[in-house]
Amino acid sequence: MSVRYKAIVEYDGGAYQGYQRQEDHIATVQGEIEAVIAEIARQHVTVYASGRTDAGVHAVGQVIAFDMAWKYGANALHRAINRKLPMDISFLSLGEVDNEFHPRFSAKRRGYRYTVYNGVERRPLLRHQTWHVKDRLDAAVMNEAAHYLIGHHDFGTFGTPPIGTNSVRDIFHAQWERDGEFLYFDIVATAFLRRMVRGIVGSLALVGKGSWSVEQFRAAMAACERSRTGASAPPQGLVLQFVEY
Amino acid sequence: MSVRYKAIVEYDGGAYQGYQRQEDHIATVQGEIEAVIAEIARQHVTVYASGRTDAGVHAVGQVIAFDMAWKYGANALHRAINRKLPMDISFLSLGEVDNEFHPRFSAKRRGYRYTVYNGVERRPLLRHQTWHVKDRLDAAVMNEAAHYLIGHHDFGTFGTPPIGTNSVRDIFHAQWERDGEFLYFDIVATAFLRRMVRGIVGSLALVGKGSWSVEQFRAAMAACERSRTGASAPPQGLVLQFVEY
Repeated sequence: MSVRYKAIVEYDGGAYQGYQRQEDHIATVQGEIEAVIAEIARQHVTVYASGRTDAGVHAVGQVIAFDMAWKYGANALHRAINRKLPMDISFLSLGEVDNEFHPRFSAKRRGYRYTVYNGVERRPLLRHQTWHVKDRLDAAVMNEAAHYLIGHHDFGTFGTPPIGTNSVRDIFHAQWERDGEFLYFDIVATAFLRRMVRGIVGSLALVGKGSWSVEQFRAAMAACERSRTGASAPPQGLVLQFVEY
Repeated sequence: MSVRYKAIVEYDGGAYQGYQRQEDHIATVQGEIEAVIAEIARQHVTVYASGRTDAGVHAVGQVIAFDMAWKYGANALHRAINRKLPMDISFLSLGEVDNEFHPRFSAKRRGYRYTVYNGVERRPLLRHQTWHVKDRLDAAVMNEAAHYLIGHHDFGTFGTPPIGTNSVRDIFHAQWERDGEFLYFDIVATAFLRRMVRGIVGSLALVGKGSWSVEQFRAAMAACERSRTGASAPPQGLVLQFVEY
């Protein structure tokens, strides 16, 4: 008898070509997880996630689900999977869940955090989890621009929707906070387009360093054209924080 | 005319066989820095440091010095060096210093921090800069034991002195602090023996999980024998924080 399991997964995306499985010789998070579960289940098991993360992007709260016949309890399954996973992927929790649950379709909100290190000198110990921006960024003016993101809008300037769908999404929260030389951007939405958070962060950074006015940011956003994005922030500063159901 | 330069250096020790230069084909922090300076100076320049750090150990406050003839000012030299250094090493500052200054012999105190992640599940994003200890550690009892480290003692149990010298050192500060699932151990001494901080942390962790009593820790320390160390904590949790002159 097959049971549906839900897991919260943390991963360091640095070594992967994104979450989603691709061809066999390409390292992906989904590919690694499915390989481990197949070894335990002795058959292929498809793993569904709340959404894909791009190449190099991290997660501390990715949510996945899969169906599996297993008779030793969720705790033993959790331990068995974590023992076999590579060191850059870990199931933080695993439990049985209702058969109706789907990590992508049941999700109500996703939250990401982007971290900028805004000091002058390169900091080697931060390089895998921050974007180093040397020009001083003005968090207040970035927040002024970020305010226009909130609501039901077409975000086609910042990201790419799946083929055959539109680029309208709902953003609930989008805010920068400075802590010394660090800037944290927290953003919560129904769902995100491909590369959308990085497109937003790259564009807001232009506002923060004075290359764009807030009005230019608004105009770029209103154009709903991918070519109007300011720039794409690099992936290593981005972490999928949580998915709400 | 040669001038003495002092620099504060941060590095991710993960890819190196320690700070100190070894044979040419072995990656060391000193080796990388000397190669970059030789390229700029067009001759070999020996770089002196406050001390060696072991393989895999990080630094945010390593202090080095070297003599060099250079006519474009310290700021231009700083920029030239940082442009050529690998991404896991960075000069945080560089300036001229008195010819009497020697990073090792002039140093009065060194400070290290060791970080333990004391949660149950593996955390991939923490793995390069923490030691994961699953057993709950009792910071209060570890501090009780750590208190005996303070003062002028023979630390031969925890580390190895350079050949022909003794293992007596002065510890000024040794304290654990818990912040949620993280434990930070800060230790300040005149100087440290090879592997000493990791020997102390490994032994204190035995006390923290109840495998050793405080009395057993004291007895091990009093024995002044390397074989009596409890265990050696892994290098990636250790960071050389500062050197005082």
